[in-house]
Amino acid sequence: MTANEKCVIRLSDERGALIETRYIEFETDKGEVVDITDEVQKSLESTSLKAGAMVIFVPGATGAVTTIEYEDGLVADLGDALERIAPQNIDYSHNLRWHDGNGHSHIRASLIGPSLIVPFAARRLILGTWQQIVFLELDNRKRHRKLVLQMMGE
Amino acid sequence: MTANEKCVIRLSDERGALIETRYIEFETDKGEVVDITDEVQKSLESTSLKAGAMVIFVPGATGAVTTIEYEDGLVADLGDALERIAPQNIDYSHNLRWHDGNGHSHIRASLIGPSLIVPFAARRLILGTWQQIVFLELDNRKRHRKLVLQMMGE
Amino acid sequence: MTANEKCVIRLSDERGALIETRYIEFETDKGEVVDITDEVQKSLESTSLKAGAMVIFVPGATGAVTTIEYEDGLVADLGDALERIAPQNIDYSHNLRWHDGNGHSHIRASLIGPSLIVPFAARRLILGTWQQIVFLELDNRKRHRKLVLQMMGE
Repeated sequence: MTANEKCVIRLSDERGALIETRYIEFETDKGEVVDITDEVQKSLESTSLKAGAMVIFVPGATGAVTTIEYEDGLVADLGDALERIAPQNIDYSHNLRWHDGNGHSHIRASLIGPSLIVPFAARRLILGTWQQIVFLELDNRKRHRKLVLQMMGE
Repeated sequence: MTANEKCVIRLSDERGALIETRYIEFETDKGEVVDITDEVQKSLESTSLKAGAMVIFVPGATGAVTTIEYEDGLVADLGDALERIAPQNIDYSHNLRWHDGNGHSHIRASLIGPSLIVPFAARRLILGTWQQIVFLELDNRKRHRKLVLQMMGE
Repeated sequence: MTANEKCVIRLSDERGALIETRYIEFETDKGEVVDITDEVQKSLESTSLKAGAMVIFVPGATGAVTTIEYEDGLVADLGDALERIAPQNIDYSHNLRWHDGNGHSHIRASLIGPSLIVPFAARRLILGTWQQIVFLELDNRKRHRKLVLQMMGE
């Protein structure tokens, strides 16, 4: 073995995490809960990453991400819960000042949060059988949304 | 110094993050708040990682993770708060359709969220003195839980 | 080209994520919502990282991080929402036992959560135009706070 061959062998043993960024875009309706699981999984498959974690991030102050069993009943129940926590028709200082009527949207988004991180292995997101990744359109109008998917892994 | 020695020196300077995955499993009771801090710390110590961040993820739609000062008073108070936010005994569309009576469990889980990320340094999770990592069993029955710990670091 | 030159060329092709840790410290007032966006961005710029994700973590059980459009109206509205979710002047088992009167602080912190993860690219945090990163001082007194910023990227 020459000196150089030795060097190459060591290099191929070197492990190291990589970063991959993807974006997903879609149109939403007011109050919509969007199941983005398949899109997120496809984005993962478009990379060479096998194991790691994916950050799903909403760059915006009136949307949020979480997980839920995506079925009509729970989608309605989640809307009801958000209405209890931050009702639409109470006074918001934001609305008094900016007159865009979406004070409740902002508060709901801050409470749920703009980021979610989901691990993956064997190129599949590790989710429960009945667990989907959802984007919550909390704004009071249709929106075009572009989410950031930041994947870190090997 | 020969050419090859030069090469090896450069290699040993090479930094790079690694990914390590672990799982923790346990049995829960209905409504239980489980302090998983020690188990999570032990899992970190079972890797070679010194500094980085750990994702704690619940693959399931009726459990959640957060941090709390783990003492009996706050554990009770957290239950009361969840009962205010998503009461057990109101109508849920989910219950009307699926008759499993855990609509409130799902809603609470979606609001708290399935993922938490905690930094670590010197092989220790960086937590406050009175801050523990807890799994919230939000389902209305005993469960076997298996959480994913995804660590990224050096 | 000699064997060693070949080796150096391969090394410079090697990609790999790095971990960088920073801390930000500040004084807070009771109930204050602190816009930490600029400090966090500066911390990112103090590293060599170009693309990746940043974890912002509160080591403590009475503070939280989230994002919001940082304007006076919404800051007041968020306080109102937290008061609905975990009112200050109801009975908390924590207060009965420890007499520090901050049961509501702990519960609010557990509900919002101690961690946020924000992606970055081209050395800039990827945030919406009207979206700021905020620390929520939920405790019932002034505090000195030290947050952990854990950056993973390339």
